[in-house]
Amino acid sequence: MNALLVLVPIFGIIALGFTFWRSSWVGKQDPGTDTMKKIADNIAVGAMAFLRAEYKVLAIFVVCIAVLLAFMGFRDPENNSPLVAISFIVGAVCSALAGFIGMRVATKANVRTTNGARTSLGEGLKIAFAGGSVMGLGVVGLGLLGLGTLLLIFGNAIGTDADSIGKVMTIITGFSFGASSIALFARVGGGIYTKAADVGADLVGKVEAGIPEDHPLNPATIADNVGDNVGDVAGMGADLFESYVGSIIGTMVLGSVFMVLPEFSDLPLGGVLLPLLLAALGIVSSIIGTFLVRVKEGGSPHRALNIGEIVAGAILLIGAFIIIGQVLPEKWSFDGKEFSSMGVFGSIALGLISGIAIGYITEHYTGTGTKPVIGIVRQSVTGSATNIIAGLGVGMISTALPIIVLASTILASYHLAGLYGIAIAAVGMLSNTGIQLAVDAYGPISDNAGGIAEMSELEPEVRQRTDKLDAVGNTTAAIGKGFAIGSAALTALALFAAFKTTWEATHDATLSIEVTDPKVVAALFVGGMLPFLFSAFSMEAVGRAAMSMIEEVRRQFREIPGLKAGLDAMNRNDGKSMGDWSDDDRKVFDQAISEAEYGKCVEISTKAAIREMIKPGLLAVAAPVLVGFFGGAEMLGGLLAGVTVTGVLLALFQSNAGGAWDNAKKMIEEGYEVNGEKLGKGTEAHKAAVVGDTVGDPFKDTSGPSLNILLKLMSVVALVIASMI
Amino acid sequence: MNALLVLVPIFGIIALGFTFWRSSWVGKQDPGTDTMKKIADNIAVGAMAFLRAEYKVLAIFVVCIAVLLAFMGFRDPENNSPLVAISFIVGAVCSALAGFIGMRVATKANVRTTNGARTSLGEGLKIAFAGGSVMGLGVVGLGLLGLGTLLLIFGNAIGTDADSIGKVMTIITGFSFGASSIALFARVGGGIYTKAADVGADLVGKVEAGIPEDHPLNPATIADNVGDNVGDVAGMGADLFESYVGSIIGTMVLGSVFMVLPEFSDLPLGGVLLPLLLAALGIVSSIIGTFLVRVKEGGSPHRALNIGEIVAGAILLIGAFIIIGQVLPEKWSFDGKEFSSMGVFGSIALGLISGIAIGYITEHYTGTGTKPVIGIVRQSVTGSATNIIAGLGVGMISTALPIIVLASTILASYHLAGLYGIAIAAVGMLSNTGIQLAVDAYGPISDNAGGIAEMSELEPEVRQRTDKLDAVGNTTAAIGKGFAIGSAALTALALFAAFKTTWEATHDATLSIEVTDPKVVAALFVGGMLPFLFSAFSMEAVGRAAMSMIEEVRRQFREIPGLKAGLDAMNRNDGKSMGDWSDDDRKVFDQAISEAEYGKCVEISTKAAIREMIKPGLLAVAAPVLVGFFGGAEMLGGLLAGVTVTGVLLALFQSNAGGAWDNAKKMIEEGYEVNGEKLGKGTEAHKAAVVGDTVGDPFKDTSGPSLNILLKLMSVVALVIASMI
Repeated sequence: MNALLVLVPIFGIIALGFTFWRSSWVGKQDPGTDTMKKIADNIAVGAMAFLRAEYKVLAIFVVCIAVLLAFMGFRDPENNSPLVAISFIVGAVCSALAGFIGMRVATKANVRTTNGARTSLGEGLKIAFAGGSVMGLGVVGLGLLGLGTLLLIFGNAIGTDADSIGKVMTIITGFSFGASSIALFARVGGGIYTKAADVGADLVGKVEAGIPEDHPLNPATIADNVGDNVGDVAGMGADLFESYVGSIIGTMVLGSVFMVLPEFSDLPLGGVLLPLLLAALGIVSSIIGTFLVRVKEGGSPHRALNIGEIVAGAILLIGAFIIIGQVLPEKWSFDGKEFSSMGVFGSIALGLISGIAIGYITEHYTGTGTKPVIGIVRQSVTGSATNIIAGLGVGMISTALPIIVLASTILASYHLAGLYGIAIAAVGMLSNTGIQLAVDAYGPISDNAGGIAEMSELEPEVRQRTDKLDAVGNTTAAIGKGFAIGSAALTALALFAAFKTTWEATHDATLSIEVTDPKVVAALFVGGMLPFLFSAFSMEAVGRAAMSMIEEVRRQFREIPGLKAGLDAMNRNDGKSMGDWSDDDRKVFDQAISEAEYGKCVEISTKAAIREMIKPGLLAVAAPVLVGFFGGAEMLGGLLAGVTVTGVLLALFQSNAGGAWDNAKKMIEEGYEVNGEKLGKGTEAHKAAVVGDTVGDPFKDTSGPSLNILLKLMSVVALVIASMI
Repeated sequence: MNALLVLVPIFGIIALGFTFWRSSWVGKQDPGTDTMKKIADNIAVGAMAFLRAEYKVLAIFVVCIAVLLAFMGFRDPENNSPLVAISFIVGAVCSALAGFIGMRVATKANVRTTNGARTSLGEGLKIAFAGGSVMGLGVVGLGLLGLGTLLLIFGNAIGTDADSIGKVMTIITGFSFGASSIALFARVGGGIYTKAADVGADLVGKVEAGIPEDHPLNPATIADNVGDNVGDVAGMGADLFESYVGSIIGTMVLGSVFMVLPEFSDLPLGGVLLPLLLAALGIVSSIIGTFLVRVKEGGSPHRALNIGEIVAGAILLIGAFIIIGQVLPEKWSFDGKEFSSMGVFGSIALGLISGIAIGYITEHYTGTGTKPVIGIVRQSVTGSATNIIAGLGVGMISTALPIIVLASTILASYHLAGLYGIAIAAVGMLSNTGIQLAVDAYGPISDNAGGIAEMSELEPEVRQRTDKLDAVGNTTAAIGKGFAIGSAALTALALFAAFKTTWEATHDATLSIEVTDPKVVAALFVGGMLPFLFSAFSMEAVGRAAMSMIEEVRRQFREIPGLKAGLDAMNRNDGKSMGDWSDDDRKVFDQAISEAEYGKCVEISTKAAIREMIKPGLLAVAAPVLVGFFGGAEMLGGLLAGVTVTGVLLALFQSNAGGAWDNAKKMIEEGYEVNGEKLGKGTEAHKAAVVGDTVGDPFKDTSGPSLNILLKLMSVVALVIASMI
């Protein structure tokens, strides 16, 4: 069995090797013209500036928490250990590193995708997806390498027998906590950054007449493009890193209880190792899957991505079947419940399928041309108010089916394999994170590629190709968001179950969290309220940050004469293609662009995001600690249940409403007909749809996704402090 | 003790006598000019038409459910009784009757308030408040009379000793179920009606250029005014009727368990009778309070209403102290917990105070001139999108404090007097419903009075006076909504506790609803999702109904030539007061008004409301029944907990966001200054605020308040079927 223990980190290294190979391949591609290079460079510098600023703050936070963890470990070495601090730091560093790798390659791949699209659609897809797969495999590689190494080291030092494994697991939970901490700030900070820049850039056009939204003359443009990387690449990556790690650790904790059973005497670590082996398998299947993503000119990028994911899923199922046969006994019973290896396999399959199902349900509610989105388009004809009401309605109704899928998965996997079944279902959902995240991260890279094509004024067919890539990216982004929420819910439950198990093991008592106990009810209410408060904080943060962005743009147009002159030149040549401008005007325009202080806008977004992420971040960490220490384990349990339920619901509501508004706007722009009237840009319906889209932006890219982290983080904090309360 | 049993319904009769006296006083007041009378008549006819249509559908529903209840009672006479059907019918009839009485007097009081305001502010207030107090005392009178009579009859027939009281209580829970059923349809149907008419009338101006929103030329105007009565008078009345009755019954069930204790040998029914006696006391204090509501010209109506409420509250507290000394022993212990009469008194005081606190917190987040509302005003300057984002943010953040108050009340009252403490806190909060509802119902009456003043083109000072009354009405409405949500939460908990107690008593087992049990978790998720689904249904219903209203108004302007001519006349005299019009134009205008088919619009709203209330209504009744019978009592418990938590949060979020948007619009209309720029009607900020207000309308008047009912109804259904699952 110890051989398997060594095998796990090796698969992490394989993934990182793949990452390195694809990353240098991307680096070798041609970044195109000088203008393209310059724009891309601006974006890359801005993105790295944000990461640097963010990680500086995080370093302080991580050190403080690590000291605290070490202190608590020294105080109660019986149930706890100062080594938790080490795991915590390793987890935080791995997560941060994954974000760094992903951002670096994404900001290289964007411009190369644009350049690839100058040759063909297939070239563009190849580069964009290569960039995405670096993020995907980087996340799973670092996750598995970090976890596997910690288990190997602490397992060897302390022991991997039934008596020692609990101690080892207590230490390793710190890894998950570290990952969660980084994820929290990456998602919240990144989300605030991206939407402050986006909303700010959009609104500038409104308050200062004539400044276009996505145009080099708008000083907030670069910040807007940086935001795509900061939010959708690094933020999403940290989110899934956390789910990935959390679900594995939760399952390991639950699996460790089987070690005392006679059926496990030949393979004592079976229940603990299974999630790690599934993750290793997922790395293999993801890598194979990435090779199948290719498309010819005129082909469908969507189909290509689907083939990669389906093959990876099939490999995972077959492999899981074989692995389970090796590491689990055929049948066993624990705590009055019958288990079977086939039941565990069933749970894994359920997890995988329900992840896909939630993704497709999300697509139904948010995709272009679907009934709910058409409904929003129709309501846009009567103005912004009906557009908003319709979008809110779609967001609310879209919670029903995913919740039913989730509830069914919980019931069925519990029926099949108890609490362990629920946790391993989460692992099943997440084991293909490698390719799933590759597909997700492909989206913002294509989006950036389109922006660069626009700003560099390339031929229209380039923009058409990047648009085609981007359109698919929007769909995969929506699916990915649904998937992230579903996996967060199951991960939180796995961690919750691990919390209960750990508390009971360390206290030698039964933890009864009764819904009819008024203390639990009060905690349920407070827990349920936190996602609302958390969302409000992040939405308000976006509002404030967007306002400072507007102020900055106003200042630039007031104080930089060249910029104003550039705008005048543009207005003089209203509607004309730049080729038809007079030479003088072109010179004025080029001068304006060279004078625009893009960096100032990047700085404002960065500062605002860092400042604004503190309050919600502290709320998320402090709430479970305070309730746990002052209210006890029952109240903490109630708090977690409340946060998880409302958090998942609000996340679905906000993400889907935002996605639906976005695509309703797209449909109108593409000229959808309502009652025989062709809609399009400039119509009243379009104005209404723009309002909906702007409201949806912080919903789907800031407050919605941040909730995933909130619920996982609070569960993980509970797990870490379980032995102390 | 039997003497007290007879006393209870007598206080109900006293309240009804007061109702009758005030109602006929209102009827004797002068309804003013012929135009006023005609408009008021249109509103009254429309309101009654809606009630008739609604009650017709409800009658079918009530008969079906009653048959079902009787059948289930015959099948299992041991734990159940066919007599539940009788209580159910009596509850439904009492609630319906209360709605009828309230609507009748409100549609009389509105025009008389207008006429009173022609004399003085005080006259207007007197009549509007008299109308409101008929609704308030009607609700509590019918509630107490119905409950008291059922207890008297069934208590005499079956017995009021410890062995029989459980049976009696099982039968009486039907009363609460009946009240809830009516409330559901009154709130949902009324909510859809009022907002379909309101949004429809507002939007007409957008799609058909030039048609004013609140003007006799708009055929939807009367429907809009009917809506105020249907939603804010009848809907709110049924809502509080349900809370009032539900909290009393829940407490009675919990109090019945004390009867076996030796400390209760002298006053065995003490715990059962206490909520009824508090309610009786509340009738006395409410009546006294109403006499103190009076204002002189130039005085503050708000202050007058406050004095009434404060005095009523003080009387209640003093009276409660005395009553508790009479009907409860000084100390007793039950189920391992110590109780004291002072603990019970403390719980009552806590309930009363926290109800007021939640009301004032609501005012802070929604009131004119408060910081959150000013925030929305500021964000309106940059357009609709930022207005919407700001409003959603205020709605979300406004959930925090009320939840903390609620959670503290739950914890403290449980600490003071166990589950009984939580239930009696709900009774404490609700025992002054008489005057509380009088103040609430005063709002829509004043609103209507203002509309009638406008439509009858009375002197400007009349409108100024009704505006002053109306402004106070908006504040009291917001406070009332917060109060309704808070009381719904506590009532649901009281019913939930009663459900558990009843299940355990009839099954002779302990009901353990563990948050860590995956069945409970799955049910929590599904339960938490239902308020989202329910809200989506009602919002979509409003959207659809508003659209048919727009179609109808378009049709009238197309097919009724006089109406079009009237509009032309108005446009010809753009801005001129009607006195300055030419005689010909005035004739055209009068002709137009006489040709407008107001009734058609009323009919459309009515039909839409009735049709659209079915789906959410069935959802609310069917969900607990299905989960209870197929999933068992644990899952039903999880479902209830999920519904209650998310329901309360979504209700707060929606009501407060809606209220804040409404008042942000008002502040802009009143010329609030932002950055030295004076806002006002016609500014961009005002347009943005109108969008926010229109979005907020279904939030605060349809989907938000309907959730109160959802959570109470589902708890009451659980209580009714507790013995059967």
